[in-house]
Amino acid sequence: MNFTIDRDVLIENLNVIARGLPNKSPMPILMGILIEVTENDVFLTSSNTDLSVEVVINDASLNITKTGKTIVPGKFFIDIVRSFSSKKINLYLIEDKLLMIKADRGEYKLHVMDPLDYPNISFVCLENPLVLDSKIIKTIVRETTFAAGTSEKKPILTGVNLKLENEKLTCTATDSYRLSQKILYLDKTYNSFNITIPNKSLDELSKALDNYFGNIELYFSPNKLLVKYKNILFQTRLLEGNYPDTSRLIPAEFPIVLKFDKSELQSVVERVSIMSPHDRERDREVTYSIIKLTVTKDKIVDISSNNHQIGDAHEEIIPTDISLASPIVIGFSSRYLIEALRSFSSAEVTINLSSESRPFVVRGENDDNLTQLILPIRMD
Amino acid sequence: MNFTIDRDVLIENLNVIARGLPNKSPMPILMGILIEVTENDVFLTSSNTDLSVEVVINDASLNITKTGKTIVPGKFFIDIVRSFSSKKINLYLIEDKLLMIKADRGEYKLHVMDPLDYPNISFVCLENPLVLDSKIIKTIVRETTFAAGTSEKKPILTGVNLKLENEKLTCTATDSYRLSQKILYLDKTYNSFNITIPNKSLDELSKALDNYFGNIELYFSPNKLLVKYKNILFQTRLLEGNYPDTSRLIPAEFPIVLKFDKSELQSVVERVSIMSPHDRERDREVTYSIIKLTVTKDKIVDISSNNHQIGDAHEEIIPTDISLASPIVIGFSSRYLIEALRSFSSAEVTINLSSESRPFVVRGENDDNLTQLILPIRMD
Repeated sequence: MNFTIDRDVLIENLNVIARGLPNKSPMPILMGILIEVTENDVFLTSSNTDLSVEVVINDASLNITKTGKTIVPGKFFIDIVRSFSSKKINLYLIEDKLLMIKADRGEYKLHVMDPLDYPNISFVCLENPLVLDSKIIKTIVRETTFAAGTSEKKPILTGVNLKLENEKLTCTATDSYRLSQKILYLDKTYNSFNITIPNKSLDELSKALDNYFGNIELYFSPNKLLVKYKNILFQTRLLEGNYPDTSRLIPAEFPIVLKFDKSELQSVVERVSIMSPHDRERDREVTYSIIKLTVTKDKIVDISSNNHQIGDAHEEIIPTDISLASPIVIGFSSRYLIEALRSFSSAEVTINLSSESRPFVVRGENDDNLTQLILPIRMD
Repeated sequence: MNFTIDRDVLIENLNVIARGLPNKSPMPILMGILIEVTENDVFLTSSNTDLSVEVVINDASLNITKTGKTIVPGKFFIDIVRSFSSKKINLYLIEDKLLMIKADRGEYKLHVMDPLDYPNISFVCLENPLVLDSKIIKTIVRETTFAAGTSEKKPILTGVNLKLENEKLTCTATDSYRLSQKILYLDKTYNSFNITIPNKSLDELSKALDNYFGNIELYFSPNKLLVKYKNILFQTRLLEGNYPDTSRLIPAEFPIVLKFDKSELQSVVERVSIMSPHDRERDREVTYSIIKLTVTKDKIVDISSNNHQIGDAHEEIIPTDISLASPIVIGFSSRYLIEALRSFSSAEVTINLSSESRPFVVRGENDDNLTQLILPIRMD
């Protein structure tokens, strides 16, 4: 193996390949990147078993003088290539034992692994892909993934459910204490599907798509989703099991609707939650805190918190619009509301309440078909 | 106690007071800020026993309607005040039990502590202070503190030693593997002193001085240093014990002098150290790595590292000037060199070597009287 390539081209492709590299793995070979050089192309592959990524480089700057195949330590290879400032990089194998990386006056030799030991990864590319704008995937990730579960006790909730019926695509994430749902209407009818994509794979896909604006092709096979765009194949396993039916969770009617300036509501909630009791979730380093929303019959809206040790906080906030069938007092996690508010791009949002024991819903004026639902916490 | 004040004025003073607040303390009362309101002034005090800070607020925006004294939970008080966007803040005591903080439509009540329980802090203000430009303190911190020790086994090394003789001020920090030394010539002769200031206090002082450009007064008493500027008193305890005599550590002659473009040298050292063996220091989360500098008799300079597991790295770097009595191979920590290089503002630096077993010295073209010394590591 011997080839020369533009540093920028190699880095751009390695940035995508990095998405598939595990941080640690019981299979040391997966910490490596598979490099395969054919007469005209360079193939790079990474995999963390859940997620596999392949890029095919066929760039004008590519100059192949010898074909070959090897596996290099992934993190070190990427760090070294990224740190170069030279325009060109030359890579060649020394006796199938070392990969030489040459750039400027630097010579870096990496011990390689045997490509025969690399697991066989088949990228399953059936017919009739679903074609989506990459923007849609990024939107789904931004608007829903944060609400997915993180507990391995309910693995199906650690992903985002995508359900397509006719041209209606429903994307749902829930950790069973809150729920995000985005409905998209596609431009034509496709075959129905109902899949749950691991959150982590969606995050990595969204990062890989960061600088890409265009169509992507989605291929479904029973347990896998293959995403194809440009020179890139991105394949993730799907979560097994039936995603819970959340259709009846969202109340149909809301006797209380409060409209707020989003950034004002955000500031008040963040400020009041400074004083609220903080709990630490078991499975990740996140604190959340309980606050209380009170609407009196005089239509005064008060957001408050009470911390026996420290003190209490009250803020009055004036809704820009209000429709109130009855007064209400409802308690909930301020973190859930703050994260929900962040998902909207609208300047105004509505808080839609039905009763103190039923979930409430946040919607944005200009965020069509995006629903953020939060379960209340009983205040005793 | 009842007073109103501009939010910005209060925040500016709390930012200084925050420097004296402990993150945690065996004395819960020290987690509080002492507020004392007299007829014309508001005094704020914080202390973590090593370091005590007092500010006197006598601002045009201050409107005092009732005097008093209390202690509020420091972190919560600061977080709440910072989060307000209103122009004015009103603070008053309710029955000596709660401090009410009012701003806009928000009402925050904090449980207070008894000011009689606060330790008596005496700010020792003798006569004849040493007057320095605040820039000098910031320079000392930037150029030396990083080289101080962190191990509590050698407490005297966890500070920066300041030694004044006539008008010569020598500032030294060392962890016994490397040493930073800055010599400053003051504009007149002061009384001699030889003190060691805890690194943490110096860091906090430097942060407190961030937006201040002007003279500061330094008052020395046997175990304390008081710094006075504007409306601020900043007092730190000094480290006890004799600081080691480092004067004979710096070699007098260097048969090998290599001059480099600083940023080029930095890039090469950082890149080569990607591949070097990494060790983790016991008492903090820092990795360092060993690299090797080789100068051949043909004046070729090579920087290299060797990691048995991963591979090896070699880079040739061309000095902008070289004076070479004999070839040399010397090993050292790349992190020490990178941190030393960062302390210089010069575009060109010299590496001054005497032998492979003796410390070498880094100096900067335009950084007068700044010496960075690094001990070599034996390469076997």
